[in-house]
Amino acid sequence: MSSSPQTTANGGATAGETEGDWVWNEIKAAARRDAESEPALASYLYSTIISHSSLTRSLSFHLGNKLCSSTLLSTLLYDLFLNTFSSDSSLLSATVADLRAARQRDPACISFAHCLLNYKGFLAIQAHRVAHRLWALNRKPIALALHSRVADVFSVDIHPAARVGKGILLDHATGVVIGETAVVGNNVSILHHVTLGGTGKVGGDRHPKIGDGVLIGAGATVLGNVKIGEGAKIGAGSLVMIDVPPRTTAVGNPARLVGGEEKPKVHEDVPGETMDHTFIYVI
Amino acid sequence: MSSSPQTTANGGATAGETEGDWVWNEIKAAARRDAESEPALASYLYSTIISHSSLTRSLSFHLGNKLCSSTLLSTLLYDLFLNTFSSDSSLLSATVADLRAARQRDPACISFAHCLLNYKGFLAIQAHRVAHRLWALNRKPIALALHSRVADVFSVDIHPAARVGKGILLDHATGVVIGETAVVGNNVSILHHVTLGGTGKVGGDRHPKIGDGVLIGAGATVLGNVKIGEGAKIGAGSLVMIDVPPRTTAVGNPARLVGGEEKPKVHEDVPGETMDHTFIYVI
Amino acid sequence: MSSSPQTTANGGATAGETEGDWVWNEIKAAARRDAESEPALASYLYSTIISHSSLTRSLSFHLGNKLCSSTLLSTLLYDLFLNTFSSDSSLLSATVADLRAARQRDPACISFAHCLLNYKGFLAIQAHRVAHRLWALNRKPIALALHSRVADVFSVDIHPAARVGKGILLDHATGVVIGETAVVGNNVSILHHVTLGGTGKVGGDRHPKIGDGVLIGAGATVLGNVKIGEGAKIGAGSLVMIDVPPRTTAVGNPARLVGGEEKPKVHEDVPGETMDHTFIYVI
Amino acid sequence: MSSSPQTTANGGATAGETEGDWVWNEIKAAARRDAESEPALASYLYSTIISHSSLTRSLSFHLGNKLCSSTLLSTLLYDLFLNTFSSDSSLLSATVADLRAARQRDPACISFAHCLLNYKGFLAIQAHRVAHRLWALNRKPIALALHSRVADVFSVDIHPAARVGKGILLDHATGVVIGETAVVGNNVSILHHVTLGGTGKVGGDRHPKIGDGVLIGAGATVLGNVKIGEGAKIGAGSLVMIDVPPRTTAVGNPARLVGGEEKPKVHEDVPGETMDHTFIYVI
Amino acid sequence: MSSSPQTTANGGATAGETEGDWVWNEIKAAARRDAESEPALASYLYSTIISHSSLTRSLSFHLGNKLCSSTLLSTLLYDLFLNTFSSDSSLLSATVADLRAARQRDPACISFAHCLLNYKGFLAIQAHRVAHRLWALNRKPIALALHSRVADVFSVDIHPAARVGKGILLDHATGVVIGETAVVGNNVSILHHVTLGGTGKVGGDRHPKIGDGVLIGAGATVLGNVKIGEGAKIGAGSLVMIDVPPRTTAVGNPARLVGGEEKPKVHEDVPGETMDHTFIYVI
Amino acid sequence: MSSSPQTTANGGATAGETEGDWVWNEIKAAARRDAESEPALASYLYSTIISHSSLTRSLSFHLGNKLCSSTLLSTLLYDLFLNTFSSDSSLLSATVADLRAARQRDPACISFAHCLLNYKGFLAIQAHRVAHRLWALNRKPIALALHSRVADVFSVDIHPAARVGKGILLDHATGVVIGETAVVGNNVSILHHVTLGGTGKVGGDRHPKIGDGVLIGAGATVLGNVKIGEGAKIGAGSLVMIDVPPRTTAVGNPARLVGGEEKPKVHEDVPGETMDHTFIYVI
Repeated sequence: MSSSPQTTANGGATAGETEGDWVWNEIKAAARRDAESEPALASYLYSTIISHSSLTRSLSFHLGNKLCSSTLLSTLLYDLFLNTFSSDSSLLSATVADLRAARQRDPACISFAHCLLNYKGFLAIQAHRVAHRLWALNRKPIALALHSRVADVFSVDIHPAARVGKGILLDHATGVVIGETAVVGNNVSILHHVTLGGTGKVGGDRHPKIGDGVLIGAGATVLGNVKIGEGAKIGAGSLVMIDVPPRTTAVGNPARLVGGEEKPKVHEDVPGETMDHTFIYVI
Repeated sequence: MSSSPQTTANGGATAGETEGDWVWNEIKAAARRDAESEPALASYLYSTIISHSSLTRSLSFHLGNKLCSSTLLSTLLYDLFLNTFSSDSSLLSATVADLRAARQRDPACISFAHCLLNYKGFLAIQAHRVAHRLWALNRKPIALALHSRVADVFSVDIHPAARVGKGILLDHATGVVIGETAVVGNNVSILHHVTLGGTGKVGGDRHPKIGDGVLIGAGATVLGNVKIGEGAKIGAGSLVMIDVPPRTTAVGNPARLVGGEEKPKVHEDVPGETMDHTFIYVI
Repeated sequence: MSSSPQTTANGGATAGETEGDWVWNEIKAAARRDAESEPALASYLYSTIISHSSLTRSLSFHLGNKLCSSTLLSTLLYDLFLNTFSSDSSLLSATVADLRAARQRDPACISFAHCLLNYKGFLAIQAHRVAHRLWALNRKPIALALHSRVADVFSVDIHPAARVGKGILLDHATGVVIGETAVVGNNVSILHHVTLGGTGKVGGDRHPKIGDGVLIGAGATVLGNVKIGEGAKIGAGSLVMIDVPPRTTAVGNPARLVGGEEKPKVHEDVPGETMDHTFIYVI
Repeated sequence: MSSSPQTTANGGATAGETEGDWVWNEIKAAARRDAESEPALASYLYSTIISHSSLTRSLSFHLGNKLCSSTLLSTLLYDLFLNTFSSDSSLLSATVADLRAARQRDPACISFAHCLLNYKGFLAIQAHRVAHRLWALNRKPIALALHSRVADVFSVDIHPAARVGKGILLDHATGVVIGETAVVGNNVSILHHVTLGGTGKVGGDRHPKIGDGVLIGAGATVLGNVKIGEGAKIGAGSLVMIDVPPRTTAVGNPARLVGGEEKPKVHEDVPGETMDHTFIYVI
Repeated sequence: MSSSPQTTANGGATAGETEGDWVWNEIKAAARRDAESEPALASYLYSTIISHSSLTRSLSFHLGNKLCSSTLLSTLLYDLFLNTFSSDSSLLSATVADLRAARQRDPACISFAHCLLNYKGFLAIQAHRVAHRLWALNRKPIALALHSRVADVFSVDIHPAARVGKGILLDHATGVVIGETAVVGNNVSILHHVTLGGTGKVGGDRHPKIGDGVLIGAGATVLGNVKIGEGAKIGAGSLVMIDVPPRTTAVGNPARLVGGEEKPKVHEDVPGETMDHTFIYVI
Repeated sequence: MSSSPQTTANGGATAGETEGDWVWNEIKAAARRDAESEPALASYLYSTIISHSSLTRSLSFHLGNKLCSSTLLSTLLYDLFLNTFSSDSSLLSATVADLRAARQRDPACISFAHCLLNYKGFLAIQAHRVAHRLWALNRKPIALALHSRVADVFSVDIHPAARVGKGILLDHATGVVIGETAVVGNNVSILHHVTLGGTGKVGGDRHPKIGDGVLIGAGATVLGNVKIGEGAKIGAGSLVMIDVPPRTTAVGNPARLVGGEEKPKVHEDVPGETMDHTFIYVI
């Protein structure tokens, strides 16, 4: 991809073009290039991206075809996604922020089109936002049906009531579980097999609250109504049942704070954005 | 749901009605209400639930459509499920017990219909019971084909030879692996990413034995022919390669008994039913 | 299966027959026996195995039908697999080595046909090898599309650039993640939920290098450009961010070497082949 | 086929075997032979015939898969056919009579299995009988939905209220239209493009009545509440708006009786069974 | 249906309600009644009718699902129908006129919903109008693709360039062929197997022109750039290669005018609306 | 289409290019132009035409997807078509001749690509040739299964034993029926609803023999082992049970020779190629 979004001052968008337009144009251009160079894939690229007039339509089409089953038709899901995206423009801006997150934080992500087409974590989050909006409108049965399809197809299980911010990267994504009363802030990065779970059978507010800019490593399990502060980092494979202060790191099973509970080591960067796992286990 | 099953003396069933009948009527009533309030979902609710004359037929239809592929037709699977459920009434009573387990133990479960339609753990267990019965009848190839479809579609991998009791909750379920010679008792609750695995390439009895009422937390790995006693609790993320006495708790990687190996702390409740994870890590 | 491959001197192949021919004949014979004894499965066995003239065609057909979607047709994928397998005979020999690995190392594997039909880890690896070859030919978009389908359908996420040897067993396989610059040697056995991941957002060589004959237990996470020596063993649930010398064992979260970092205990056998997990936690 | 049904005294059935059993055994034996000689077709033969325990199940399965659509699932149709066939044994005996009719009257029919699998006229008639029974039970909407599917899939349009006898051959069948108040007797043979239509927009009894043993040639159009007598013959391409006496022949556009209206030529044979078109145009 | 449209002064629509609204409400009410009385069909009725907010959406959905194939996705066709119907309100009014035509002229049509769901002639005409509009916009390849799908699925072959009026009944419809330069007026009724064809391989204006209110009987073939006058009637099975004056009747092969070419018998009614075939062959 | 094949001396092929290559290049060029101008169709054009390396592969893919069903997979049919076309190069040259026939004789045919994609008559003939070859190889069951699929999908019913030449145009095609012992020469044009049928239930040689260059009008029925001479013309709607001499015309029901049986009028042109219907009914 010629113009890397990191190095472009205003995100690449020229005057009079929204960021969403710019991203969508990048996606279409990449899809056209790929269709040209790989005829065997062109059919897929045209049906999923190039033939559509907007990112919203392309994404709705793609999700409809990914999540459909013999009893939940693609046309029905397509309608549902299209209508919901159309009813709330904040959904699209969250989508764009997520595309940027993948592109900036995952070195394996070679284009926005790559993310839109292939990232199950990205697709699961977009479907979740639609399910969440339906849940908020008290359309619970259909929100739960979407929840179930996402859990089947992507192995990503986000309860429709969970509140998730924007600029989210679910990297690899398989096995992520996020419970009903969990809250995830903006610019959070969550690796695969991460659980934001509850601790019992009593209802009410019982799941973790994840601050902005948090990074949660692969296989980490965070249980209970604990607070993971802004910019904190959770090591891979950790089991966290305690609050973690902002910009500190928790590691281990059970997890302890790096630097000690009294005076935990504070880092400068925002791990959810820098994706820096390197010093996690210097404990 | 108006009548909570927890608070109804005889499970809600009136005189002359079996528990299965009562649950099925609850499911149909919920599906009808949802179809009324959400026309976009009505097609799915009618085809999967309302149009059927019994829970057995509804479940067989749903599993047939969930597990079918281009080479294993839904009609074939539907027949297989229907015939197997019809040949052994204990299968249906186990299904009903599992529905109750989800409803009583998972605060996110809003109705039996919700569980029947959407819980991949519930559906995986029902398909497993059919595969297990086919295995017992020495119809191994078809049992293994079902096993494979469940592993693909639900990411739940239960060997058809494994013996699983009733009143089981596989919560979230993604990534659960249960080996060939494992035994799981009644009223057990198992979270996602739990492994009941072997320790080598030698055949024979090599997988864990899980007692009644056990709770196994998310991501726990139990390896080898070890015995997890009745009412025991395994902490999330634990690696267990030892026997765990009844009503005690094992946590950590590798797992130790809470309270110490000599005199482990004994709890009063049945964690598989109370779902109490809260004190697990007070070690 | 009458003739166990372990106990047959030359792998069962008679003079003038390649090992691939012998395995394919075994597969067809098993499928015929199963079709005879289980008419309900015969349709599947004929379409997937018996009607084909070679293992390559059977496997291409099976993968095409497993990985197809409404926007990526089975015929297109079938062509892609068939052409790629035909263009590089080393792919088939790796397939045969993987079939043997499953048969020899997994006591639950009852025949080569069982593995070919039902093992999602086996199928994911075969699809990966095709994606890897397409990646090497700079056909990245289609390689990534295959990658995505394998991640959706099998919950196995292997970046197409990752280099994977032969004689590989991905046992259970759900949740396996292998990153872009990872290298996996020959005769390696990897259990489910294993991650070979990176540690940050910087590109370049950033994933683990796994030597020949390594065994990695369920749920283990290996992060960064570390070297796991030949014949090493990684305990289930371990978090490994260090090099592990040949024929030593690393366990725990964070992982340490069994026997101590100075003079780790060295084992004689090749764990990737013996699958011996038993003494892992005697640390 | 070794034992031609024409030359077997009691239809081939041995003592203690019903005719339906005998036909079903012939079908299964032919399907097994074909599966053996043509592996590419074996999958289809097993799923459609060999794996089933009865002709009723095989036919219901086949019709369910032929007539299903994305909005009318095969499982639903399979159930509907199976339940209807089971509720009325006269349906099966009519099916058997139709199979015999095809076998005896159509020299291109090489076996009962050939007819069951491939004859759209045969399949359309079987689906019609089910639709007719549903209509009789006042289940009109579903009867009309079946009617519509048969019209789409087979281009055979028989109103579910039409009464059709047994031993019917719809040869080639494309384009056959039979109206709401039409009656067709037993042992009738009707070629393709034949219309038994009405003459206006007034309701009531307005379609032809076809006696036993009638033969109606290709493209013939019979309009209005006219009576085609037992054993009569209608020439190909004729337009008939008059009564035709028993065992006489009507030909032409508009049709006249062969031999004259006063004293039409009477034939001895039963054209619906002998299929003798040869002297039709000696007028 | 309680309120027959024939006997309702203003078509049943109340003040402030368009005719289209009234018809759509009738359709939804009928579908709801049918869903209530026939649960096995409810899924189909909800997905196709009840869940939709307008006749346009319902029809687009139904056509998309009827005409889709493995290479032309239902979502793509749904979009195409929806966008085209939305861009030209005259399409919907023609649809409503066609629904009324079926209801008023075909005694077998029991409700508007019956026609919308099941009449292949009705559905073929609606798809044709969309194809015709695409053709007019010079989007010929997609217009021809729709043409082809309609020819496959409904066996109705109307060239997208043909101009077709409103209030059209294609009764039974199988086998209807209408050529490129044909013109069909308003309130025309055409039975099955009717051809409006050309006479050679030269391009240009070469197909019949059918006036308003014409009735063409089953199997009639009209060839060449002939003019069938307003209110004329063509007998079933006729071959017409001559002009037919208004309100006269042509019958036979080759067709002659009833009453003679010099002074053909003139009828008072409009056969395309009265559907009166009765005196056609009093020649 | 820029270069009309009629006006190109050597069919457009340049030196060193076969006619098949030239036609295939024309098809790909047209498909590319259409994909460029109509993104909604591009997916279909790429999957069906542009992504393929030869006409044989494109046609096999298209037929496989058109004729597949839930019990006869597209991959299986694709293989069958591909293998059969590859085994006999005369099949491809007949395909090319048929494409030319459509292009030269049907003014509504705007390109070879239009014919390949959309002409059910063309597709039915290609599938028939494959079925015929399988029949000749004594693979009757699979030949009859193809026969049945073509009859269902295209409403074209050609017995696999029938011998059909090259340069065939089945215009519109719906309802064409060609019996087991029929023979059709080269450069024949047959309109829709044409029957080449038998006259009884006796086996043996019982169907028409159609000479080279014959034109058979819409709805014509030719019955019995009669001989239609080279270059003869059969009028639309005719019923022919007599031999027709070369370059003469038969019309009517029953058919007579134009000019009288004694000295029928002889025409100069080849109607199967000129498609001249115009003077047919000057009798």
